Amino acid sequence: MSPALPGHLVPMHCHSSGEEFGSGLARVNPDLASERLTASFCVPSLTAVLDGGAERTRVRRAVVDVIESDPVFSRENQYFQSQNERYEAAVRKAVHLRKKMQDMGWSEDGPESVYIYRALSGDVAFLLHRVFMRSISVLGSDKQVAKWIPLATEHRLIGSYAQTELGHGTYLQGLETTAVFDISTQEFILNTPTISAMKWWPGDMGRSATHTVVFAQLYIHGKCYGVHPFIVQIRSLQDHSPCPGVIAGDIGPKMNFEHIDNGYLMLKNVRIPRENMLNKFCEVQPDGTYIRHGSQQINYFTMTSLRISLIADEVILPLMKACTIAIRYSVVRRQSKLKPGEEEAKILDYQTQQEKLLPQLAAAYAFHFINNYLHELFNKGYKEIQGRNFALLPELHALSSGFKAMISQYCTSGVDICLRACGGHGYSLLSGLPSLYTKILASSCPLIYSTSTSSPVPPSVTYLAAMKPRKCPAKDKLDFLSPDIYTEAYQHAAIRLISSTAAKLQDLIQSGAERHEAWNQCTVQLVQAAKAHCHYITVKNFVETVEKLENTAGIQNIMKHLCDLFALHGIFSNAGIFLHDGYITGAQMDMVTASYLDLLGIIRKDAVPLVDAFDFTDKNLNSALGSYDGQVYQRLYEWAQKAPTNKQISPAYEKYLKPLLHNKLSKL
Amino acid sequence: MSPALPGHLVPMHCHSSGEEFGSGLARVNPDLASERLTASFCVPSLTAVLDGGAERTRVRRAVVDVIESDPVFSRENQYFQSQNERYEAAVRKAVHLRKKMQDMGWSEDGPESVYIYRALSGDVAFLLHRVFMRSISVLGSDKQVAKWIPLATEHRLIGSYAQTELGHGTYLQGLETTAVFDISTQEFILNTPTISAMKWWPGDMGRSATHTVVFAQLYIHGKCYGVHPFIVQIRSLQDHSPCPGVIAGDIGPKMNFEHIDNGYLMLKNVRIPRENMLNKFCEVQPDGTYIRHGSQQINYFTMTSLRISLIADEVILPLMKACTIAIRYSVVRRQSKLKPGEEEAKILDYQTQQEKLLPQLAAAYAFHFINNYLHELFNKGYKEIQGRNFALLPELHALSSGFKAMISQYCTSGVDICLRACGGHGYSLLSGLPSLYTKILASSCPLIYSTSTSSPVPPSVTYLAAMKPRKCPAKDKLDFLSPDIYTEAYQHAAIRLISSTAAKLQDLIQSGAERHEAWNQCTVQLVQAAKAHCHYITVKNFVETVEKLENTAGIQNIMKHLCDLFALHGIFSNAGIFLHDGYITGAQMDMVTASYLDLLGIIRKDAVPLVDAFDFTDKNLNSALGSYDGQVYQRLYEWAQKAPTNKQISPAYEKYLKPLLHNKLSKL
Repeated sequence: MSPALPGHLVPMHCHSSGEEFGSGLARVNPDLASERLTASFCVPSLTAVLDGGAERTRVRRAVVDVIESDPVFSRENQYFQSQNERYEAAVRKAVHLRKKMQDMGWSEDGPESVYIYRALSGDVAFLLHRVFMRSISVLGSDKQVAKWIPLATEHRLIGSYAQTELGHGTYLQGLETTAVFDISTQEFILNTPTISAMKWWPGDMGRSATHTVVFAQLYIHGKCYGVHPFIVQIRSLQDHSPCPGVIAGDIGPKMNFEHIDNGYLMLKNVRIPRENMLNKFCEVQPDGTYIRHGSQQINYFTMTSLRISLIADEVILPLMKACTIAIRYSVVRRQSKLKPGEEEAKILDYQTQQEKLLPQLAAAYAFHFINNYLHELFNKGYKEIQGRNFALLPELHALSSGFKAMISQYCTSGVDICLRACGGHGYSLLSGLPSLYTKILASSCPLIYSTSTSSPVPPSVTYLAAMKPRKCPAKDKLDFLSPDIYTEAYQHAAIRLISSTAAKLQDLIQSGAERHEAWNQCTVQLVQAAKAHCHYITVKNFVETVEKLENTAGIQNIMKHLCDLFALHGIFSNAGIFLHDGYITGAQMDMVTASYLDLLGIIRKDAVPLVDAFDFTDKNLNSALGSYDGQVYQRLYEWAQKAPTNKQISPAYEKYLKPLLHNKLSKL
Repeated sequence: MSPALPGHLVPMHCHSSGEEFGSGLARVNPDLASERLTASFCVPSLTAVLDGGAERTRVRRAVVDVIESDPVFSRENQYFQSQNERYEAAVRKAVHLRKKMQDMGWSEDGPESVYIYRALSGDVAFLLHRVFMRSISVLGSDKQVAKWIPLATEHRLIGSYAQTELGHGTYLQGLETTAVFDISTQEFILNTPTISAMKWWPGDMGRSATHTVVFAQLYIHGKCYGVHPFIVQIRSLQDHSPCPGVIAGDIGPKMNFEHIDNGYLMLKNVRIPRENMLNKFCEVQPDGTYIRHGSQQINYFTMTSLRISLIADEVILPLMKACTIAIRYSVVRRQSKLKPGEEEAKILDYQTQQEKLLPQLAAAYAFHFINNYLHELFNKGYKEIQGRNFALLPELHALSSGFKAMISQYCTSGVDICLRACGGHGYSLLSGLPSLYTKILASSCPLIYSTSTSSPVPPSVTYLAAMKPRKCPAKDKLDFLSPDIYTEAYQHAAIRLISSTAAKLQDLIQSGAERHEAWNQCTVQLVQAAKAHCHYITVKNFVETVEKLENTAGIQNIMKHLCDLFALHGIFSNAGIFLHDGYITGAQMDMVTASYLDLLGIIRKDAVPLVDAFDFTDKNLNSALGSYDGQVYQRLYEWAQKAPTNKQISPAYEKYLKPLLHNKLSKL
């Protein structure tokens, strides 16, 4: 395919939403249209690369079309709705989705499934129902799977997943909920012994779920056997009233996910049959004998795999959307004069604006590719575990924590930068950016927290043993466009940080510090080392991905530029770790800076085509600033007029303003 | 006063909110109480230092007591209210406040005034009314001041301030609204010529204001004289209906400030008398003659001075509150075991948690002190301008932009770190952190935007000429606790960045680049240099402030530690700019790191007393996580139960869930 034929510059997919607002919006803003005329690469080809092939692009677009053409799934009023309204809409969508999937012949495991939830932007209820099913599939015996999975599949119940407690997060051993085996009735008796033991946060549990998987400390004959998963019914299937001994409710307003009924749950002597403990890996026999069939660590696997599966939808896609909105807006918005006498400049022509947005764009691509790599790794791990081989578990746990933390932190900061780079308008909900930001922040919160107290260094860092030259060989700024040069710089920095932290740990222990105290003294540096390791792997994977691309349609060239930008931005922004031992000198750092700033100018030219390639529809972006046609100001005005604040008459005038003003009116 | 007498450890101010929740909350959580027993300094003495004297502390607390004991000012339901409800409450509070101020004998200029708005946490309408008044005071003639200020003072009108347009922000020359002088009627005719010219964002304008100051391009006999301010009536004083030719409304939902009716305004041939152009500095005479009395730059002064006056309330106070909430929570929350066999550790005992929170605490103090410095500078500048001396204006503008940008960015990131450091609970609105975060983000947005396109380097950087040794003389980690050592390192780094950027600019111009293009090529580095300059001044000011403190009651010692932490955290986090030319070597950077990590452990011990010294009441914090008594879990549960999601029955069950579940129930 030859690069940049005009036919490729118009995405195959229809982004027009002109009808909504009348003919004034039908045409594309010329300031945005002109950006699409000079793309150095073929946009649809890049979209296909991102999707993993043109066939997948076709499937994705078909799903998106079905979802977006159905008014039940509309997100048009989302920014104006209360928590109660959003919950009701999300439940309505979830129930409607079930019918739609039947009509379309889509299954939960089908190729469409991932695209369905993306097309809905996650704005739908019963997301935890899938986690409920997944935990039964992973942790349940064949008999349990045979009983519960069909019930769940047919929605004869609504499931949730109750691990987190008010006072306890990812440290499972610390959970306080108890499950005492009563041999006389062959039941477990579940209790919430303290207020901090209340289950807190589980999605769909506040108002919807009828069943949940509860993690609780198992006691048999007074002895504690640690945390185990139990299926507990919490609401009546007849009238939805709470089951005896169950107190459940909604945890109240949050920074996002207003549509989800995150819940709390207290259990008072709730009895469940012996068969309700998920017992693929451990079992309580009728006489109270406890038998273990596998590693206790398997209990983490549901969360670990969930963590990885959410990276794309909850972290990387928001960054891609934020880049799309901010970059399109930045070629429409003009501010101040760059050159005296000319018209005001597009803000993307300012180097400072490029420096804010383009590294985020490069990161979105870098993380898309590393996410593919992590998924392959996990699918492999999942198969091993199905075959009862648990050897990979600790590494998968470490990798999922480390990468999720690194990517989340980077993407959260990236969306934040995009939001602020749009000035005041970024902060209107109608821009779509605040909801992306709060979503990404919320989904990354618990994970970053958990890594603060667990070992963040993956055990198999095989490159650690590699010997490398002690000085970077680059002689001019062009040398820093060589992947070998920058990949080795990252590798060197990661090795140095890991080795020096290991040495410090050793020193502390040898000088008499207790092991746990020595470890705590090193955690700030351990986290720094773990980040450097993940950053290195991400750069390396980006380089390898680019090498494998065919250079048709200009794709490889532009991806190489983005890869260079991602790598050099990282060196520029973390200069200290490269300069520390003189591996890179001050003079070389100036070369890095020069090459980095040059790249900004190069990628600036393709910025709009690069976000067009993400192929988001206007409805999916749901942004007055980021639409394909760039009619920013018109759309902000049209949308603002729909706000309830303009449609409802406030009692404030009659009650407060009128008396205030009229009191004095006679004297005016 | 001797340090750490038990009597001083209990703040004089009553923080108890025990009554609200019954006796279960009356006692202080022992995990929090124990933190207060070992303070190295006298908390009330530090509070007095922060307030600027014990007398001011007394006045502040008296104001806070009056405001918080009045139920009209309660913020108890804030997290559950819709945009409409919050607007109505804010108007009610504003009107009630007027009465309260009369009753108490408080004036807008009195010593109480700053504390009133802090006690209300800005959650009140008519804030722009004060800006309206200030712009008339600064830009209006004596005659105009005599006419309008009494009307505004007595609230016979409600004022706003309409500068920003939909397509135009801080670049005043770019505004599109026009004001054409009609000599025949002695009126100005105001128009909004395009959609991007619509006034957009002004507070109180969407639903409340009757008058506003409109900035518009002045035309006389077809000639444009640039942007000028005009007083325009937009709503009837009789019935509040829009005046002829006025279209006004609310811009819809935003990331925060739901209580403020940020508005839009279109003007169609709106006529105002000649006397309504604010004419202290320029005037249109009846025959159309235009006369200028001063610098056009004066138009910026209202915004510039506003910018400075908001730093404390909108940026630094939120960081102080976030630190208070996160640090108190971090000694109550326990997670994982630090030492095997012991109970789970307080999360503040983890080095990684200290490294997140304690530098933010040090920054809050650093910015409190630099804010005092900036205010002195501005009060001086304001007096000069009143005397028609405009020489200081450009520097005040540059300083206000530079420091506001630096402090805002630092504090926004700091609040974000505090929020995330509280794990999932930080992200519940009930924690109080999301509203602090969105508030600080929103208030910093437009300013960061504006600095991206204006000159950020203050003109008078006198220290640039100073000659300094080329190497840092520190020999061990204790040397880095010497203010001379680190202040000089900051100074050196700032000089190097400014000089090298100036040299690059010079090179580019000498090699033929156009001036504006050369400037644009250097802006990323110019911004870096400006930040380094502001950081240096902030460190220097902190050092000087500490030196001036008397070392009674342990105050100077703990402030010295915080100053060291602020300075070393900055070097640790921006290592590259210190290592770049070898001023600090890698070995010295290891000493910085060692001293920095040591300081975390030292300040950890005083962390709770240091936030107690900010002296926020529970009602002011409005946080389930941050209350003085540390009853975190109980309060989260109590507050959640009040949420509308638990009080209103959702129609979702009858409409969607019941049919879904019952459809299949017979088969269960």
